[in-house]
Amino acid sequence: MTVVHCAPVAPVIGDHDGNRRRVLTAIGSAVAAGAQVVVLPELATCGYAFTDVAEARAAGIAADDPLFADWSRAAGPAVVVGGFAELGDDGELYNSAAMVDASGVLAVYRKTHLWDREKLLFRPGDSAPPIVHTGHGRIGLLICYDLEFPEVTRNLAERGAELIAAPVNWPLVDRPDGEHPPETVIAMAAARTNRLCFAICDRSGTERDITWTGGSTTITADGWPQGPIADLDLSLSRNKWLSPHNHALNDRRLSF
Amino acid sequence: MTVVHCAPVAPVIGDHDGNRRRVLTAIGSAVAAGAQVVVLPELATCGYAFTDVAEARAAGIAADDPLFADWSRAAGPAVVVGGFAELGDDGELYNSAAMVDASGVLAVYRKTHLWDREKLLFRPGDSAPPIVHTGHGRIGLLICYDLEFPEVTRNLAERGAELIAAPVNWPLVDRPDGEHPPETVIAMAAARTNRLCFAICDRSGTERDITWTGGSTTITADGWPQGPIADLDLSLSRNKWLSPHNHALNDRRLSF
Repeated sequence: MTVVHCAPVAPVIGDHDGNRRRVLTAIGSAVAAGAQVVVLPELATCGYAFTDVAEARAAGIAADDPLFADWSRAAGPAVVVGGFAELGDDGELYNSAAMVDASGVLAVYRKTHLWDREKLLFRPGDSAPPIVHTGHGRIGLLICYDLEFPEVTRNLAERGAELIAAPVNWPLVDRPDGEHPPETVIAMAAARTNRLCFAICDRSGTERDITWTGGSTTITADGWPQGPIADLDLSLSRNKWLSPHNHALNDRRLSF
Repeated sequence: MTVVHCAPVAPVIGDHDGNRRRVLTAIGSAVAAGAQVVVLPELATCGYAFTDVAEARAAGIAADDPLFADWSRAAGPAVVVGGFAELGDDGELYNSAAMVDASGVLAVYRKTHLWDREKLLFRPGDSAPPIVHTGHGRIGLLICYDLEFPEVTRNLAERGAELIAAPVNWPLVDRPDGEHPPETVIAMAAARTNRLCFAICDRSGTERDITWTGGSTTITADGWPQGPIADLDLSLSRNKWLSPHNHALNDRRLSF
């Protein structure tokens, strides 16, 4: 079993030092409460609702910024995943996520599917999402809108991921009473069809003109949401048999 | 708008004449109530829980069986989709679905993804699911477990389907209180990610040792279930734009 915490953070655009403290407090609280995997929101270091390219670029940090050494010290025995605005060696700005443990940065992933105005602010990544074999499971990284492409979540399952850790920023959209947010439904389906666990950390409250969904949740390999803190059995992800005659990954017969 | 009815039928294994009447009654009732598309369950003509190959083969009929002329007469102005056990020209038994209107049989589809013991009773189809441009919309056919492969539903969306009509037989499985059946969650996600409507007709009650889910439902192109009878706006399926910058089908960037 793996204790997974989706840790709330509410960064303030432009308040670099305050955001650094907010993230370290969130990591520290989760680790003190026993978290073995801590997932922070998308762009947790800087906020999301940038007015323009200049404001977004001012939030950018390199993947080797000293901030991640702070995350590493705060991580203790846990693996920490969180989003940041990455200023690449190529001078481009990426909407990225880092995976960090006490040994340092384990992986950096650049969001490949940009949502709406992000296309005006960021360059999309071109590399497949990483999977890291950590002491707390084989953890894959995706960011927000990436989750809405079932081919992408399928690929992580095929490559052996047991848990997808996904920093997200979900703007609130209408939904019928009693329904989960649509993004949660999509992740539940990806969990169920691939026998794969999820830990999704969303924002809540508001930021400038955006109201967040507050949809942070873990999801079991059976596809059922467990709320933002859960003890997940990642080992279920290693068994893709759905019945004595059916295998989730090998049963697909049509090629298109 | 298109009035879609998922029409309940409870066939009895071995009772060929009774099952023929049950299906015609179900079609007639739906058409009399204003249905423009009528969807019947999987294997509606014969039942599902066969003991062995001999019993399943005894239920087989050819795709040009006179039964479909009866469906055609009962269809009136509607398009009718329903499941049957198809005895192929090749002597093999298939778990198939027919689409019929007043003009006759429009399409026959052989289920390509067989569930559990079906692999002992049926041969899987090898052809891509058909899409028929009917007077009530561009309707694609899938059967039950086919729905659980997002690559398959995606393919129908890419080929222009507005509505997927899916005869199913969903054995009841555990789910948390307040949740939809897992198969519904998977279809909701496919609807939402592809901007595609669904009409899914399930069984209810019990058949031999199987308890059915009773999960018949329509689903809007936004991904929300509307129950077994609904007036669906299929035209929403023709607009794949999710935001001014995002297109459901064209946004995927990674190839695997």
